[in-house]
Amino acid sequence: MIKRVLIGILCGSAILTAGILIGHIGIKKSSSSAPSWVRDVAKDVDQSLIEKFLSEVDSVQIQENLRELTKVPHMATTAGDEQTVQFMLKRWQDPETGLDQAWREEYMVYLSFPDPKNPNKVTVVSPSDTVLHTAREKEKPYTPDQNDPEVVQPYAAYSPAGHVKGKLVYANQGKPSDYQLLSQTVDLRGTIAITRYGGAGRAAKAINAAPYGVLGVLVYTDPLDINDGLMSDVNETYPHSWYMPPSGVERGSFTTHFGDSLTPYLAAKEETYRIPVKNITGIPPIPIQPIGFEDAYKLICELGGKAAPAAWRGAFNCTYNFGGPGFKHTSVFNNSDVKLDIFNHEEVKNSSNVMGVIRGSVEPDRYVIYGNHRDSWVHGAIDPSSGTSVMLELTRVLGVFVKQGKWRPRRSIIFGSWGAEEFGLIGSAEYTEQYFAKLSERTVAYINVDIAVFANATLRASGMPSMQNVIFTAAKQVKAPGLDSTSVYDNWIQYANRTSPAHGTIPRVGYLSGGGSDYAAFVHYLGITSMDISYTYDRSKTNARIYPAYHTAYDTFDYASKFIDPGFVSHQAIARTAGNVLIRLADSLLLPLNCSDYAESLEDYLNTAVTLYQDDLKSSNISMEPLKRAVASFRSAATHLDQVIRSSDLANETPLKVRRINDQLMLLDRAFLDPLAFPDKYAYRHVIWASSSAGQPTFPGLADAFANAESSGKSTDWDKVHYHLSVLSQAIEGAAHTLVDVI
Amino acid sequence: MIKRVLIGILCGSAILTAGILIGHIGIKKSSSSAPSWVRDVAKDVDQSLIEKFLSEVDSVQIQENLRELTKVPHMATTAGDEQTVQFMLKRWQDPETGLDQAWREEYMVYLSFPDPKNPNKVTVVSPSDTVLHTAREKEKPYTPDQNDPEVVQPYAAYSPAGHVKGKLVYANQGKPSDYQLLSQTVDLRGTIAITRYGGAGRAAKAINAAPYGVLGVLVYTDPLDINDGLMSDVNETYPHSWYMPPSGVERGSFTTHFGDSLTPYLAAKEETYRIPVKNITGIPPIPIQPIGFEDAYKLICELGGKAAPAAWRGAFNCTYNFGGPGFKHTSVFNNSDVKLDIFNHEEVKNSSNVMGVIRGSVEPDRYVIYGNHRDSWVHGAIDPSSGTSVMLELTRVLGVFVKQGKWRPRRSIIFGSWGAEEFGLIGSAEYTEQYFAKLSERTVAYINVDIAVFANATLRASGMPSMQNVIFTAAKQVKAPGLDSTSVYDNWIQYANRTSPAHGTIPRVGYLSGGGSDYAAFVHYLGITSMDISYTYDRSKTNARIYPAYHTAYDTFDYASKFIDPGFVSHQAIARTAGNVLIRLADSLLLPLNCSDYAESLEDYLNTAVTLYQDDLKSSNISMEPLKRAVASFRSAATHLDQVIRSSDLANETPLKVRRINDQLMLLDRAFLDPLAFPDKYAYRHVIWASSSAGQPTFPGLADAFANAESSGKSTDWDKVHYHLSVLSQAIEGAAHTLVDVI
Repeated sequence: MIKRVLIGILCGSAILTAGILIGHIGIKKSSSSAPSWVRDVAKDVDQSLIEKFLSEVDSVQIQENLRELTKVPHMATTAGDEQTVQFMLKRWQDPETGLDQAWREEYMVYLSFPDPKNPNKVTVVSPSDTVLHTAREKEKPYTPDQNDPEVVQPYAAYSPAGHVKGKLVYANQGKPSDYQLLSQTVDLRGTIAITRYGGAGRAAKAINAAPYGVLGVLVYTDPLDINDGLMSDVNETYPHSWYMPPSGVERGSFTTHFGDSLTPYLAAKEETYRIPVKNITGIPPIPIQPIGFEDAYKLICELGGKAAPAAWRGAFNCTYNFGGPGFKHTSVFNNSDVKLDIFNHEEVKNSSNVMGVIRGSVEPDRYVIYGNHRDSWVHGAIDPSSGTSVMLELTRVLGVFVKQGKWRPRRSIIFGSWGAEEFGLIGSAEYTEQYFAKLSERTVAYINVDIAVFANATLRASGMPSMQNVIFTAAKQVKAPGLDSTSVYDNWIQYANRTSPAHGTIPRVGYLSGGGSDYAAFVHYLGITSMDISYTYDRSKTNARIYPAYHTAYDTFDYASKFIDPGFVSHQAIARTAGNVLIRLADSLLLPLNCSDYAESLEDYLNTAVTLYQDDLKSSNISMEPLKRAVASFRSAATHLDQVIRSSDLANETPLKVRRINDQLMLLDRAFLDPLAFPDKYAYRHVIWASSSAGQPTFPGLADAFANAESSGKSTDWDKVHYHLSVLSQAIEGAAHTLVDVI
Repeated sequence: MIKRVLIGILCGSAILTAGILIGHIGIKKSSSSAPSWVRDVAKDVDQSLIEKFLSEVDSVQIQENLRELTKVPHMATTAGDEQTVQFMLKRWQDPETGLDQAWREEYMVYLSFPDPKNPNKVTVVSPSDTVLHTAREKEKPYTPDQNDPEVVQPYAAYSPAGHVKGKLVYANQGKPSDYQLLSQTVDLRGTIAITRYGGAGRAAKAINAAPYGVLGVLVYTDPLDINDGLMSDVNETYPHSWYMPPSGVERGSFTTHFGDSLTPYLAAKEETYRIPVKNITGIPPIPIQPIGFEDAYKLICELGGKAAPAAWRGAFNCTYNFGGPGFKHTSVFNNSDVKLDIFNHEEVKNSSNVMGVIRGSVEPDRYVIYGNHRDSWVHGAIDPSSGTSVMLELTRVLGVFVKQGKWRPRRSIIFGSWGAEEFGLIGSAEYTEQYFAKLSERTVAYINVDIAVFANATLRASGMPSMQNVIFTAAKQVKAPGLDSTSVYDNWIQYANRTSPAHGTIPRVGYLSGGGSDYAAFVHYLGITSMDISYTYDRSKTNARIYPAYHTAYDTFDYASKFIDPGFVSHQAIARTAGNVLIRLADSLLLPLNCSDYAESLEDYLNTAVTLYQDDLKSSNISMEPLKRAVASFRSAATHLDQVIRSSDLANETPLKVRRINDQLMLLDRAFLDPLAFPDKYAYRHVIWASSSAGQPTFPGLADAFANAESSGKSTDWDKVHYHLSVLSQAIEGAAHTLVDVI
């Protein structure tokens, strides 16, 4: 009986247990079981996915992308450009390796071209109108690439057409101070000025010259600035090395604004209002033409007049004279003029952006944008196709993940292949104008990779301080090219570092304070947290101001694969680093943006401003205290938000909490926008990172206003300093308000 | 055996069932049970809470609030103002009935006052300098209120001080066309113009006069415009009725901008940069002074010269002559001048906003803002204390809910008691400047209830079209005062209605296209969806341009309780309606903002624009097609979003979905901002609702540009029309982009 009872109890217990298990595991609780999205909304970045991504990025694929993209010259709106549009679309629409969707967007933009039938001419003409010398119209061919009939003649885009001649003078870099100094010795009225690249913006060299009565300007690249002094194509320059051959000419856009010149703040659609051409500002008022140093040498070394100061000298083995004006009496060019015959014309043409997206799964209304321009001056192997090759490899790897159903990012990713960047960042600027509201509201960050590889020594990164940390995290996970046991981060820190009060010695991340590439509209017009990265030089090995084939007909696949990145390993490192940042921005539960690092940069700027300006401001009765208080408020707000983040269990709290914090981080840069702060700087609205002419590592508007007031001494100019201090303090306080408790 | 087996099976089944039940009900699933926040994030507005709120709103409480607020005059920055600050703080900090938190925020703002020791004087002086008549310096007392020493003398704030005299002319409403017509008959140089209120802004009456050489301006309220013609205080005007007594004078701010005049776009803190006083624009360049119609009668009826046109006539029982200039030969004032001695002075003074908050539970980073100004010209019973009394009753009821733990809104609620509104919406404008980024990013809507009750006939509402529906919903749930079986909505529709293509006959909701109250900075500067409501007139019973005691010393508790809203039932209806809207905005899972209603308004504006402008624009080669396409895009995007909403199960899907849609709705008005669209209109950035002088019910920038081009005929002015069409089309397309699929 006991046995039976025991058996009964045992059986009963077993049955009960089975029942409990069935009840617990087998039946879904209708009222309180968690909906499936509870897990989705808490998902964080997947480390194994990142590793898979890093291992899939293939240098050979990048090389083949580059080969394809550089088959023909692809200047904006040419047939070659259209070929790249089709190529991008084909790749991004590929059912196996493409994105969710890809399409083109077109703008009618104002461009400037030379006339293939009437090439621009630079000549030396004698008093009897005999042509004594004609500058090269085309760069000397070393490979079939230079012979492509689609290679555009070197020219200065947006230089007016015109026929001017006059005595030649040498004006160094064409800075205001250069013309001022020169004019103390030489009467510049009626002259032609030859200048070298560097020191001032392209258009500025002509804009600064015109008030002195200069009629035309030449510009060349001095071998000192680009070739570490080397000049001979017999054995020193390309195709023997990466250096610029004597006939190489840097083309470029000679405008100081960005975006389409005829449609300021408006997307350049067919029926959009266009300002009259005569109202365009920021372009050369007089003809300007770039030439090779081969021709510049012939002109400069024949100049008469006094010797220019030592700082004006380049690498030519002759004295750099100011010009009599004009040539030496002993020269074959004695008494001759230099003549510019410029036949540039302007045209409104159809330029395309190619856009592609991967839809986000959890927060599709949050965008991470990754972009680069597609158009080049000639074949553009490095600028911009190195970046485009990297972008295509990145989209291939991620596209395969998506198409195979292995991955979908938390947030949406938008890829932009911008058009007409070379003419003034036009495609990206028009895009931001057209979609201003949507992009402002939803964009987490913009990643720009234009020239992916300048050289193969080290990473170079610029960006908002809040992005520093995610760049570091990504760079630590990528092997430095050619150094299997060193990370990109560890390599980088040896080339460029600084001491951070918070982090000790760390790599130095630059700021995006100018308009160097397509990040400009995102940073300055929209206030979107942005970054720009590339692989670059060992500065102990070269002083080249940029890679020497920049904007020449030598920027080809041959050049890139032989001299810039043999094996495409630096390209691969950039693809891995940028892709890693992209995945982290798209997938992290908490956005990897750090507001305390922003505080550190503001404090740094403040300290500089106090050192430079406080005493002078005091004597003008202007207090820096509001600015100091604002920066202190920002620091304390950032510390507070970091504390909130640290003390939260974001994966288990309501997803509206992490969304709230992410919104604070995402919108931080927007708080620094003031559309009225810089009335003279087109589309510059970010009061911390706007461009500045004062050349001080501090708040740009304050620095410029101070420099101006200091030089004029006018009380209205000191008022402007005070005004800008208030603008700045209010913007920083306003940003701080967005970081403290939301209510 | 079979029995035993059966019993065993039965027992086993029972045990198994028990086990299943225990397992299912008794044990929490650790991995998949729903976190508590899953229910919280899906919570919607609670209908029973709204009913409780409606029933708790007490007319006696409102009456007592008003009694307290109107004990003494409380002009901005006076001791009386400070008393109201303390009163608000006490109420909002009350531990039983107050808000979560309340505090004051101070700004140093530029105000204008008369000199109590040297009252402004308006006199008629004979050629021998004998004073023949002196206008009243104070309004006639009928109750002790008018004798309060703190009653400020009637004056025109921001009128310059000055002593001017000249022959009098009558300039109707002081519009540009009035001075133009008058100047065809009378040489206005050296004259004093008397004008009546209405037709043009206060400052405009002097700004328009100055170019004609007018030296000074008087302004009065004609009994035709305010009293339905009645004039006698023996039996017709207050204290016998609501009408303005003969000595009543409307005070006011004579500036056309809003916000502190010295700190445009900057919060007026102590060390903020201030522009030089001479750079202030939009204020009278010549002295101006308001007087009562009792004095105006004596002046106007003595005027010589030709009879003014019929449209210029008011209710005086005499001919309204232009003036000779000056008085009739038969007048005792023959040959006399009118003299203005204005002693106004400006001062930077400390003005306070009182702020209070109820923290949101689920989305604390979303704000519903409810506000009204606190300062008055004198006792300000109706303007603004009727609104403040309503706000205090609303915060009392909600405060009790919060303090008793019965309720906490989904979103945060911010209450603002603004300072110095009467001087130019200063407190609210400074607030939006100081917290620009935070408020832009997070504010769902702004509700303004300034004058809560103009009269007790019907509801009046203005706002963005997207708010129409929530106002209707709220108004349907509130009983109309004095009509127990009729709702506020059903009563309203009888007084003001229109036919909507989508909804049939509905009450007419106005637009917030001017700067009439503190919504201005929210609407025009921040682009925040806003509304303004009040109870108002039966227009079949009065033509008064506003309630007759407006800005006079008769706007007292006595006046309000006897003639505007005996029993405070209209106040109660407004508190209930506004509070209902507030709760719905704060608590609804899906924001009660309707984008298709916005589309209807845009279509309406478009139709008007096409009718008015298309033919003329065609002949100037300007196409309206981009604008038509933009409005069509907006409509289709709105339809799409509504479809997404209808097909969603928002309470059961991820809370990030409803947040995404709510963000689209919340930020819709932000997409219409263009800070550069109206360079001549201070802080007007909303391209749909900006102020306009063209007086057409269509897009304001287009209407103004068209009127300007039509009158000048200049091609550059037609260019501006084209420009504004592009601005508008891009803004509307941009808004549409925010409503379509987020990616």
